[in-house]
Amino acid sequence: MVAELISVGTELLLGNIVNTNAAFLSREMAALGVLVYYQSTVGDNKDRLKEAVRVALLRSDLVILTGGLGPTRDDLTKEAVAEQLGLPLVEDEETKRAIAAYFKDQKKKSIPENNWKQAMVIQGANVLANHNGTAPGLLIEQEGKKIILLPGPPNEMVPMVKESVLPYLKEQSNEVLYSAMVKIAGMGESAVAMEIEDLIDKQTNPTIAPYAKTGEVHLRITAKADSLQEAKELVKPVVKELRKRFGIKIYTEEESETLEDVVVKLLLKHKLTLITAESCTAGLLTGRIVNVAGVSDVLKEGFITYTNKAKRKLLDVSKSTLKTYTAVSEQTAKEMVKGAAINGDADVAVSITGLAGPGGGTKDIPVGTVYIGCYANEKATVKHYIFSGNREKIRELSVVHALDLMRRCIISNYEK
Amino acid sequence: MVAELISVGTELLLGNIVNTNAAFLSREMAALGVLVYYQSTVGDNKDRLKEAVRVALLRSDLVILTGGLGPTRDDLTKEAVAEQLGLPLVEDEETKRAIAAYFKDQKKKSIPENNWKQAMVIQGANVLANHNGTAPGLLIEQEGKKIILLPGPPNEMVPMVKESVLPYLKEQSNEVLYSAMVKIAGMGESAVAMEIEDLIDKQTNPTIAPYAKTGEVHLRITAKADSLQEAKELVKPVVKELRKRFGIKIYTEEESETLEDVVVKLLLKHKLTLITAESCTAGLLTGRIVNVAGVSDVLKEGFITYTNKAKRKLLDVSKSTLKTYTAVSEQTAKEMVKGAAINGDADVAVSITGLAGPGGGTKDIPVGTVYIGCYANEKATVKHYIFSGNREKIRELSVVHALDLMRRCIISNYEK
Repeated sequence: MVAELISVGTELLLGNIVNTNAAFLSREMAALGVLVYYQSTVGDNKDRLKEAVRVALLRSDLVILTGGLGPTRDDLTKEAVAEQLGLPLVEDEETKRAIAAYFKDQKKKSIPENNWKQAMVIQGANVLANHNGTAPGLLIEQEGKKIILLPGPPNEMVPMVKESVLPYLKEQSNEVLYSAMVKIAGMGESAVAMEIEDLIDKQTNPTIAPYAKTGEVHLRITAKADSLQEAKELVKPVVKELRKRFGIKIYTEEESETLEDVVVKLLLKHKLTLITAESCTAGLLTGRIVNVAGVSDVLKEGFITYTNKAKRKLLDVSKSTLKTYTAVSEQTAKEMVKGAAINGDADVAVSITGLAGPGGGTKDIPVGTVYIGCYANEKATVKHYIFSGNREKIRELSVVHALDLMRRCIISNYEK
Repeated sequence: MVAELISVGTELLLGNIVNTNAAFLSREMAALGVLVYYQSTVGDNKDRLKEAVRVALLRSDLVILTGGLGPTRDDLTKEAVAEQLGLPLVEDEETKRAIAAYFKDQKKKSIPENNWKQAMVIQGANVLANHNGTAPGLLIEQEGKKIILLPGPPNEMVPMVKESVLPYLKEQSNEVLYSAMVKIAGMGESAVAMEIEDLIDKQTNPTIAPYAKTGEVHLRITAKADSLQEAKELVKPVVKELRKRFGIKIYTEEESETLEDVVVKLLLKHKLTLITAESCTAGLLTGRIVNVAGVSDVLKEGFITYTNKAKRKLLDVSKSTLKTYTAVSEQTAKEMVKGAAINGDADVAVSITGLAGPGGGTKDIPVGTVYIGCYANEKATVKHYIFSGNREKIRELSVVHALDLMRRCIISNYEK
């Protein structure tokens, strides 16, 4: 099956936002063995939208549109597709109820008139529920072609794809596709790529597709076969080889599991409580740990000690340490993590202190210098990193490496 | 002038990388008043590449291709464009010398054979020097159309655009484009759209383009004219009208300024120190405030009090309050923010306590219930919100609304 993605939105054509939707959908299609030959982007203009859909339907079996389903006047995707397919828009009772319910949930007194526009759907379309917004998705089959309309905001589009679109597309293909996932932390994309260059070069079936996110690389191993059993058999040896090559660097093989999930799972498994102490990341680490629902059983409290004064007051970092070694030092990271664990009476603690820049760098302590401490089993370990990138990137990398250090500390101190 | 961008690369179609080139070029074109009506992405496939170029030349005056100029066999952009335009490839002496010089600079002993492929250029093309790689850019004029080929790596493409492409295009265009920005916080996209429906309806020049991000709506007002002065004059009354309609809801008119920038600027302006106390957001608010470089002059410390025990210990929230009203209540938010301000001896404090879910909701306190407190001028204000969406969305909305509440508190307490 050949697919084409059409991203709709003038903000994309003006370069106000980067098109992450196309990358996400392309990855998901690749994982299904669906070939994406074209991606295109058009503005909120009905004629150009219709033309893009016409061309796409000539050369592709599946056309996925994202964006332009909002309540405003310049949201025209639904209208353009309906006209191009020669189908009318009809009111969908269920969607109408869903919109009313959505606003009721939000305790909104009145529903903006223009929101009812979103209750109109293309006749005969399969309506895909939107649990994170008011614009439903639409799935239309016409003359052997499939057209799917999805909302533009990633927090609405991504769940809809996982809940509705992928299961539907899986049913369509007669070939069985099976993928395994191997997630690696604390290694850059090119370092991982070099490790597996030989495997990538000779790959046909299964294939290994690397996907890099900040501080992590996810390897998706996908095999095609006539039966699920066969596909699994093809994937197995590759995963085994990857385990051999990356070892402890692999933090999970679960598609949906994040690094913070793994850390919280380890803490729960060993009935350990956690305290955090953050300086340059100032809460980003704890904020990410709390992504995990049910974390309240392990996380006691967190200290954001951005100033030296706060480090002394809340974490008992000694004045002389700060004076002799400065706030960005192994000694400070160590005293921070010990102070956090003791003052908060927790089994495990983590500390981050570093220089995210842009200013303040010196020859001895360049911008990007970060010390991460982990306290476990009454021992404190501190690791030294020098990250490159802008302020935001350095802080993100600090969070990922802190999570990975916690994972390794807990495993080495409490496992087996 | 109507432009079209064609990004070339199978890695884009597989979703292995996000297309930042298209966003960059679109921004640059918009700034020049060049209208980008289409962006498209094709893989390293000669036939599909030729077809994409053919279609682009039918509907656009300027076609910019990025990628596929590398030395490897699957880099086909130059070959495809040459064939489509019916022009031969000829060796370019200067490029050949440049490639030799590049490898000499890099202290490489030998030059890989396939690199000489990059010395071949389309006959009659204007060769654009590449100071950061070996693939030159090409600029071709044919039958009133312009075709520009650029290397894919951003660190090669971006400098080439600034050095060669923009100056060339500036000469071509006789129209000037000017944009103003108005950023609104605490209002949804559809509510904003309804407020300005009449303006949007009658818009021609200038135009108003809304862009929604979590808890915010950005309005870009863009005018075209023969001179910058004229364009500015066209934009002015629209901005004035928007100020009248949205008032305090507008947090900035600076393109590059974020909500956290504004909050920190206000704190610095009035020499106010800040303390944060977060429960359900667990550091996300403070982490975002610390995006602002130089925040260390205002932010003293932050408390992440995820458990009741921590709320009592670190913020002196009374046992009876937690018992009588629970942790997710106006009273708790008020005691949290007062406790933070007093214990931390700060001028301004902010507190967030809420239920992000997915579990734990009741009829009285449904998932999405959030109380945000702001302490300023020795007074505590608490606002009650009910957000909808998943755990992540609820926490993001809490952060944005907390920043906006801080902004309003500081303005009402310390301005004029």
